[in-house]
Amino acid sequence: MSRVIATYRVFDPKKDLHKKAESIALGLTIGSWTHLPSLEKKQLEKHKGEVIEVIEKETTGLLKIAYPAANFSADIPAILTTIFGKLSLDGEIKLVDIELDSDLETAFPGPQFGIDGIRSYLNVYDRPLVMSIFKGMIGKDLTEFKQQLRDQLLGGVDMVKDDEILFENPLTPFTARVQAGSEIIKEVYEQTGEQKLYAVNLTGRTFELKHKAKQAVQLGANALLFNVFAYGLDVLQALAEDPEINVPIMAHPAVSGALTASPFYGISNKVLLGKLLRLAGADLVLFPSPYGSVALEKAETLDIAEALTENRTLKRAFPVPSAGIHPGLTPLLINDFGKDSVINAGGGIHGHPGGAQAGAKAFRDAVAGVLANNTLQEAATQSPELAQAIELWGAPT
Amino acid sequence: MSRVIATYRVFDPKKDLHKKAESIALGLTIGSWTHLPSLEKKQLEKHKGEVIEVIEKETTGLLKIAYPAANFSADIPAILTTIFGKLSLDGEIKLVDIELDSDLETAFPGPQFGIDGIRSYLNVYDRPLVMSIFKGMIGKDLTEFKQQLRDQLLGGVDMVKDDEILFENPLTPFTARVQAGSEIIKEVYEQTGEQKLYAVNLTGRTFELKHKAKQAVQLGANALLFNVFAYGLDVLQALAEDPEINVPIMAHPAVSGALTASPFYGISNKVLLGKLLRLAGADLVLFPSPYGSVALEKAETLDIAEALTENRTLKRAFPVPSAGIHPGLTPLLINDFGKDSVINAGGGIHGHPGGAQAGAKAFRDAVAGVLANNTLQEAATQSPELAQAIELWGAPT
Ligand SMILES: [Mg+2]
Ligand SMILES: [Mg+2]
Repeated sequence: MSRVIATYRVFDPKKDLHKKAESIALGLTIGSWTHLPSLEKKQLEKHKGEVIEVIEKETTGLLKIAYPAANFSADIPAILTTIFGKLSLDGEIKLVDIELDSDLETAFPGPQFGIDGIRSYLNVYDRPLVMSIFKGMIGKDLTEFKQQLRDQLLGGVDMVKDDEILFENPLTPFTARVQAGSEIIKEVYEQTGEQKLYAVNLTGRTFELKHKAKQAVQLGANALLFNVFAYGLDVLQALAEDPEINVPIMAHPAVSGALTASPFYGISNKVLLGKLLRLAGADLVLFPSPYGSVALEKAETLDIAEALTENRTLKRAFPVPSAGIHPGLTPLLINDFGKDSVINAGGGIHGHPGGAQAGAKAFRDAVAGVLANNTLQEAATQSPELAQAIELWGAPT
Repeated sequence: MSRVIATYRVFDPKKDLHKKAESIALGLTIGSWTHLPSLEKKQLEKHKGEVIEVIEKETTGLLKIAYPAANFSADIPAILTTIFGKLSLDGEIKLVDIELDSDLETAFPGPQFGIDGIRSYLNVYDRPLVMSIFKGMIGKDLTEFKQQLRDQLLGGVDMVKDDEILFENPLTPFTARVQAGSEIIKEVYEQTGEQKLYAVNLTGRTFELKHKAKQAVQLGANALLFNVFAYGLDVLQALAEDPEINVPIMAHPAVSGALTASPFYGISNKVLLGKLLRLAGADLVLFPSPYGSVALEKAETLDIAEALTENRTLKRAFPVPSAGIHPGLTPLLINDFGKDSVINAGGGIHGHPGGAQAGAKAFRDAVAGVLANNTLQEAATQSPELAQAIELWGAPT
């Protein structure tokens, strides 16, 4: 009998946790059990929630509860409503883990490309990828867009993404960005022989997204950025499942902090940015690194990365630790997230004294140095761009 | 120049709040300002965020920041990503209010029926409506569904809603519930002359919802229940805007606690369940009352109700304080939420010693008593059902 197991962290140490767990397992499934007539028990048995485990700690407890898949349709809205619908409103309780039985998991697409698909598209197999973000495109035109994209790509980043707050606008309309992006990527390929990705921000009304994404793909888009938490996880899934939208999708964590930031309420980053985004089909997942100004606890970031890359039937998604990343952080990032991750920078590229091209080169040289088991300082002796970056931003160890 | 003004509560009293506000206003719009050349300043002026007000309190502060509508498309995902995208991840900060300029507000449908439309459909003008919820339908069949619906409606409730955790299932499929519901409503109308509403739970994959909703309307559905926070506010808006989905939509707060419950993070109930649900087109909004086991602070519930009903161009939506409601709470609920609200009960109807019909009658008698300026005890002298309810659940004052 297929089911989903949810783990909750609860904070009231005075309450009877076993009783609380029982009341959740029944309340969110069949309502009551003990006093049912035996015929009804027989009918309802397969719908009954089950307490799997209760772990009591000093001030917190962990409740593990199994919900039969017979109770919900195999979609994320139904699962979320079942395991954390009413319960999300019921005092200090945080959803910290979910496990779907493997036959339930097969209802979900997972990443369409994943780490291996993206590596094969880019023809880059042996190092973390390097990504960068446009700088302040609001109010700027296509000339600026092209210049920035060209500089970043020629410097050696593997992919460039739109800023998540760039929406449909007259100066750089969606389709114009897609076309210009594809043009610059071709130009850079001819110049360098390197394939690149540009993730255009897919925005607008929900029921227009599929059409817009298909149009983008037809016009040459080779990746999409998506503010999934401003829409819904099921929308991401629908985009990932559509065979005509056959490009990698990069999930942005915008708005997710509203769900994940409290230790007492909401949903853990591991579940939301890790497990659910991978289920729904994100190929790349951005999240705050442990090192920038907007930061997450290191353990949380490692949990996200593990959920995105652990061995499952679903393809693996790229962890993209972000925000406040500069070349000096490369050794830490590779140490934490390994080769199968993306190093992503905005200010750490554009703020380089030599400009975005030099900024991108500094990152690539840092990555090469780390993979060759050199210290950053050693690597910097061969790379004036990296030396300048370290001088400006430092290199914490 | 049209704009949205967001108010944030921040918690770090040591930081310079004015500086923080400035950095948000710039960081979430054009990035930087002071050192721009004057030509660029001229170009970017209309995109620049503006600090409207900074209120410093002892341990908290309120930051009011205006974002030009020129920066985003007129849809909720774009607005949320702009005002609380990255910012939701940036430490202790809660989005506590939003104000849209009136020309921006006209981009949103608001409720299609609202309080007045629903009253006119039901032909009930002079009292709060009474609603009830099916009891434990998971694993139960259509016979049980019909019996429960008939009992609740004959007892005098104005509308009945599905439980939010009832999804597509073989025993009571969506279309069968719609047809059976419509049949029972007809039956009850013939018997009592009263029009009733049944809100069927609209579930499944996002891109199938419109089709499913239209099918339901064609089969006689006269209201929809929708777990909007398991999907997305923009999905609700699309349903509300569709001219073929011409029935009231009831928004359920499932999963919303993950966004609203923390005082330090996330989005206030006033914004999420009040302002945004009304903008997006909810006709009725369920939220925890201040009185049940799953409860909100009274001030928060009043904020939600005010946002749903305050005078605007948008139609008013019905506040539906819910969870743990029994007839004894009727005076408090009417005192708090006025006549233009819905009194909604599950256990307080089905748990009545005389059954669901008696439970519904107890509520109607309580409402009539309160509106006639009688105490509940006075009203109970004329209503054995109400007397029984008070005996069982009490009547807090
Ligand atoms: Mg950004
Ligand atoms: Mg319910």
